[in-house]
Amino acid sequence: MNECIFCKIVKGEIPCYKVYEDEGFFGFLDIKPLNKGNCLLIPKKHFRWVDDVEDFGAYWEAAKKISTATKKAFGSITTSYLTLGFEVLHAHIRIVPRYENDGHDDGIQISNVKDISKEEMTEIAEKIRLNLNS
Amino acid sequence: MNECIFCKIVKGEIPCYKVYEDEGFFGFLDIKPLNKGNCLLIPKKHFRWVDDVEDFGAYWEAAKKISTATKKAFGSITTSYLTLGFEVLHAHIRIVPRYENDGHDDGIQISNVKDISKEEMTEIAEKIRLNLNS
Repeated sequence: MNECIFCKIVKGEIPCYKVYEDEGFFGFLDIKPLNKGNCLLIPKKHFRWVDDVEDFGAYWEAAKKISTATKKAFGSITTSYLTLGFEVLHAHIRIVPRYENDGHDDGIQISNVKDISKEEMTEIAEKIRLNLNS
Repeated sequence: MNECIFCKIVKGEIPCYKVYEDEGFFGFLDIKPLNKGNCLLIPKKHFRWVDDVEDFGAYWEAAKKISTATKKAFGSITTSYLTLGFEVLHAHIRIVPRYENDGHDDGIQISNVKDISKEEMTEIAEKIRLNLNS
């Protein structure tokens, strides 16, 4: 999958706001953030759908690590996990920290993107990384 | 949590279209279906949030079993998993089979409920159970 943008992100060929990496999975900020601290977690190996990912339980355990770190970092109420998969054809879990009146009362609308500056994105990623390691 | 409706469903005090049960988890059709075959998977023990559930990886592995069965039963393209948790205060994963032009292009809108008769709900639950066991 030479042309897959998520494969390129894993290989470092496209920059990202990286927050997490382990043997199998790679996490980074969604550049179309639905809320502050919204991350994507992908398998390093290319799979079409989340259900195709080997070691599915470990995949979600890694997602929860990021969720826990965002709660510590930003005091979010909870985390909404969402999998769609029609936009980028590489499996990804959306990890969306939830806040009061965040505009996602009717589920998670992916067009409901928050305006966050590059400087703030850099700070957000750093805060998540710090809280993953603490 | 005497008053929790999901705890009552687990105990059989409120009827449901049951599709799945194992030692820790219980699955049934959402009576406000977002698509044909939309299930909820809950821990039998009461937890407030999905992230609180013990054995988080096993929880998602069980959700994938239901997802796989719905794909076999209804030929859905994929499954969207969603966790919200502000409606019923007992952890639940929404397992939403996805179809062409199903009206969920902008994420999963929980107000976008499909009209499915009780007879059809009974048939849908039976089909999922059959495909879980095959």
